[in-house]
Amino acid sequence: MKTLQEIGEHAAIAALTANLKAVGDDCAVLPQPGSETDLVLTSDPLIENVHFTAEASPEQIANKAAGRVLSDFAAMGAEPQYLLINVVAPPEQPFQTLEKIYAEFSNLWKKYGVEIVGGDLAQGPVLELHVFGVGRVPKGTALLRSGAKCGDLIYVTGPLGGAQTSGKHLTFEPRLEWGKQLRESGVVTSMMDISDGLATDLRHILKASGVGAELDSEKVPTFGEIKNALFDGEDFELLFTAPPDAVFQPLEKSGQIFPSIGKVTANAGELLLDGEPLAGKAFEHFMSLNGSR
Amino acid sequence: MKTLQEIGEHAAIAALTANLKAVGDDCAVLPQPGSETDLVLTSDPLIENVHFTAEASPEQIANKAAGRVLSDFAAMGAEPQYLLINVVAPPEQPFQTLEKIYAEFSNLWKKYGVEIVGGDLAQGPVLELHVFGVGRVPKGTALLRSGAKCGDLIYVTGPLGGAQTSGKHLTFEPRLEWGKQLRESGVVTSMMDISDGLATDLRHILKASGVGAELDSEKVPTFGEIKNALFDGEDFELLFTAPPDAVFQPLEKSGQIFPSIGKVTANAGELLLDGEPLAGKAFEHFMSLNGSR
Repeated sequence: MKTLQEIGEHAAIAALTANLKAVGDDCAVLPQPGSETDLVLTSDPLIENVHFTAEASPEQIANKAAGRVLSDFAAMGAEPQYLLINVVAPPEQPFQTLEKIYAEFSNLWKKYGVEIVGGDLAQGPVLELHVFGVGRVPKGTALLRSGAKCGDLIYVTGPLGGAQTSGKHLTFEPRLEWGKQLRESGVVTSMMDISDGLATDLRHILKASGVGAELDSEKVPTFGEIKNALFDGEDFELLFTAPPDAVFQPLEKSGQIFPSIGKVTANAGELLLDGEPLAGKAFEHFMSLNGSR
Repeated sequence: MKTLQEIGEHAAIAALTANLKAVGDDCAVLPQPGSETDLVLTSDPLIENVHFTAEASPEQIANKAAGRVLSDFAAMGAEPQYLLINVVAPPEQPFQTLEKIYAEFSNLWKKYGVEIVGGDLAQGPVLELHVFGVGRVPKGTALLRSGAKCGDLIYVTGPLGGAQTSGKHLTFEPRLEWGKQLRESGVVTSMMDISDGLATDLRHILKASGVGAELDSEKVPTFGEIKNALFDGEDFELLFTAPPDAVFQPLEKSGQIFPSIGKVTANAGELLLDGEPLAGKAFEHFMSLNGSR
C-alpha cells in the first residue's frame, strides 16, 4: 500500500480531487445567482517545522499564515473580505505566543480591511494555523491560469528566489493592490502567485492554458541566481501574461512598470530557458528530504 | 509564562478574540449590502488523538469532520453551500486512507447538496482535517444564542449522552433539515448545537441571552444517565428555546415533536436541575487529562 510520501503532494491532490469540483486556480470562483460579484474562496495551512521553524516570531507566523491566503486573492485580482482561523497548539504552548499571533492578525485587519470573523482553537502536536478566506470579484472578471495566449508576454511583479534564506517567506506583503489593478487593466490574460518557484508555477499556467513558454534568463529579476528564481519558491509575487501591446493602466500611470521575462508559445507544455528545454522538476513537498517548506 | 493548558480553551479563546470581531455563535452571520441573504461562515478542526483515534474508519473521520461544520449551519437554521478542506497527514500516511476520506466527502456532497470547492494538502505529524463552510440564510433570520426570553421552554432534538462510548460522535447526522424548519417556524428564540454537553452549551445560551434556566431531569432524553446528557457532549443535537404557546410548523404537521426539557428563567446565569443549582463545570479541552475529545 503506497504512502503519501511515495505518491507526492501534487499527484495526491490531483488523484484525491478527481471526483470533486475542479480545483485548479489559487481560489475557487463561484458565480452567485442575481449577484454582480462572484464569491471567491481559498484556504491555506501553515504548519510548524513544515512552513516555519521555531525561530520564526509570532508576528512572522501570523503574517505568513494570512499572507498566503491574501496572496491567493491577489492572484485572482479579487478583494478579500473575511478570514477564519483555526489554530492548533500543544497544551504546553506559551499562551503569550498565541496572544502575539492574534494581535498581529488584528493589525492585518487594519492594514488590508479584511475582518477576522471566526475560527477555532484545538490541541495538537505542533503549532498550526489554518486560514480560510472569503472575498469578491466583479462577475466574470477573476484572472485564471487558463487564459494565456500564444504571443503573450510573461511578467512578474518583483525579484524571485532566496525567500527561505532571506526570511522573505515570513515577511512578504501580499500583492493585493497590484492584483486588483492588473485585473482592472482589462488586458491580463492569466495570473497566479509564485509559491512553488517560477518553473513549477509557470508550468501550471502552461498546462491550464494549453500553451508553451520561452523564458529569457537575463530578464528574470532575481535575488541570487536564475536557479533560485526558478526553483526556490515562496516569493508570493504575481506571475501573469498579457498581449505584447498591452497597456497596464492605472499601474503605468503611477509609474509602476513590471519586467517582461519571456513569451508564450504555441508548443503546449514546452518550457524553454534561453532556447533550451528546462529540465527542472516540480517541487514536491512530500518528496523533500528535510521538509523545510 | 502561562501555557495554553493552564489557561484552558474557553478562556484562551475569549482572551485571544477580545480585539477581533465578536465570535459567539456557531457560525459568523454577515449581512451583505444589497443581498436578500446573509453570508454564514464557520470552520472546525478534526485532529487525530484529539477528536478521533486510530480505530475510526476513514468514512467516520470524513463524516465527523464535515458533520461538525454542517451541524454549525443547522444550529443557525442556515443552508450550507460550499466546503473547503485542509488535510494534514504524515508522509507515511497510507494513501488509501485519504482516498476513502475524499470518497466519503463526495458522498456527503450528494447527500446534503454542499459542494467541496477547495482546500489543501500538507504534511504534519498527525492526520487532521480542517473544514471551512460557507452558506446562506435569509436576511436577519439566523437563529442566535442571544434570543432566549424568560418563560420560554427549552427543547432538544434528540437523546443526549454517551456519544463517545457509543461511537455516535463519529456517525451522527447533522440536523440541517430540522434546523431549517425550526428557523422557518418563526417561533424559535435561540438555538445552538450540543457539542460540549447540555450543561455547558445551555450556559452559552443563558450568558448570551442574559437569562437563567431550570431543567427537569426526568424530561431530558438520554442515552444513559442524566450526567451523561449534561456533560458528555458531541451529541450534535440542536438545543433551542421558544415561547410556551409556540407551534413548530411545518415540523409538527409532519408528526415531529421535540421534548421540552425545562424553562428559561429571569435569574441571569443561574442553571437549576430539579430545583438545585447545577454544580457542573464547563468541559475544558486543554484541562482534560486524556485529551479524548
